[in-house]
Amino acid sequence: MKRGLLIVLSGPSGVGKSTAVAEVMKHQPNLQFSVSATTRPMRPGETEGKSYYFMDRSRFETLRDGGELLEWAEYVGNYYGTPAAPVDEALDAGVDILLDIEPVGAMQVKEKRPEAILIFLAAPSFGELERRLTGRGDTPPDKIASRLEKAKWEYTQAPAYDYIVVSDLVERTADRIESIMKAEKCRAERQLDLLKED
Amino acid sequence: MKRGLLIVLSGPSGVGKSTAVAEVMKHQPNLQFSVSATTRPMRPGETEGKSYYFMDRSRFETLRDGGELLEWAEYVGNYYGTPAAPVDEALDAGVDILLDIEPVGAMQVKEKRPEAILIFLAAPSFGELERRLTGRGDTPPDKIASRLEKAKWEYTQAPAYDYIVVSDLVERTADRIESIMKAEKCRAERQLDLLKED
Repeated sequence: MKRGLLIVLSGPSGVGKSTAVAEVMKHQPNLQFSVSATTRPMRPGETEGKSYYFMDRSRFETLRDGGELLEWAEYVGNYYGTPAAPVDEALDAGVDILLDIEPVGAMQVKEKRPEAILIFLAAPSFGELERRLTGRGDTPPDKIASRLEKAKWEYTQAPAYDYIVVSDLVERTADRIESIMKAEKCRAERQLDLLKED
Repeated sequence: MKRGLLIVLSGPSGVGKSTAVAEVMKHQPNLQFSVSATTRPMRPGETEGKSYYFMDRSRFETLRDGGELLEWAEYVGNYYGTPAAPVDEALDAGVDILLDIEPVGAMQVKEKRPEAILIFLAAPSFGELERRLTGRGDTPPDKIASRLEKAKWEYTQAPAYDYIVVSDLVERTADRIESIMKAEKCRAERQLDLLKED
């Protein structure tokens, strides 16, 4: 059984991560989306184990302190993180798994699972990212400013990624991500079993 | 101007390199096929500068000794090699260039141009390679045996490649090679200019 690929997609807020993920998932039946754990309350329409693994703080802290999270962070008073067990189970079963997480989390995953393939989703330009955040119309100006500040820092992390994918047309963005998956499956170190005589 | 990709496709005789190259070239208008130099005589239907750069031994040796070949070898009394100048010109002009060469040559290219992307084309199994060589019907049994001996050595080189692509259905093989090209263009080190503020 060939191990699945651990793909981490990250990038600044507003760049189009969820749209890209949805498009990729349409074409990749063997790709599993990683479900995060969170301590924030469940919202209407959300499903346990599908939207998130919902849990209280003490359960989250037990997982975290037991090294059972691939990454975690706290946002506005709630914990968010990626439980390692479902990820490792998928990989062992030969299933590719995709994580859509914050850049801070991406670096934690790479540290814990060096085989992770890190993809940074970037706007065609920083100016374009600004236009996208402003254009959504659902974000107050002071939040836009703070997100752009954060994005600047996140962009400084991009050279540590394996790939930088431009988020322009969603079909093209998805095609680039899927090409990376196909190419990574062809990497020599993953193919050496082919070379045995038989 | 973004530098083109230098792609080296190699693998044992009979594995399907030329068929794969022809299929890839159909879809990739920005991909140039590298023309080799040779000292063997021109055959009917061949064109100078398209089939090969035809030249005499002393001209070839001048190029070789002047370090103007990316790789070279001698087969049954004739020299074959890849002139560096057209390759470098293409890369500088942002054009991707594809070399279809012997495994011995592939290693020479990697030494001279470490940015080269080495793809080893492998049969789905070694037994299948044997069947393909036998099945072509145009190769005498003693030649098949010696080609298989050579292929065994060539397979030992494969771990030094960046990618190992299975040569099964030609469309799938070409798609893998094209995915590798797309993915390589997204590699972080080739995309860092995207991250400048503008």
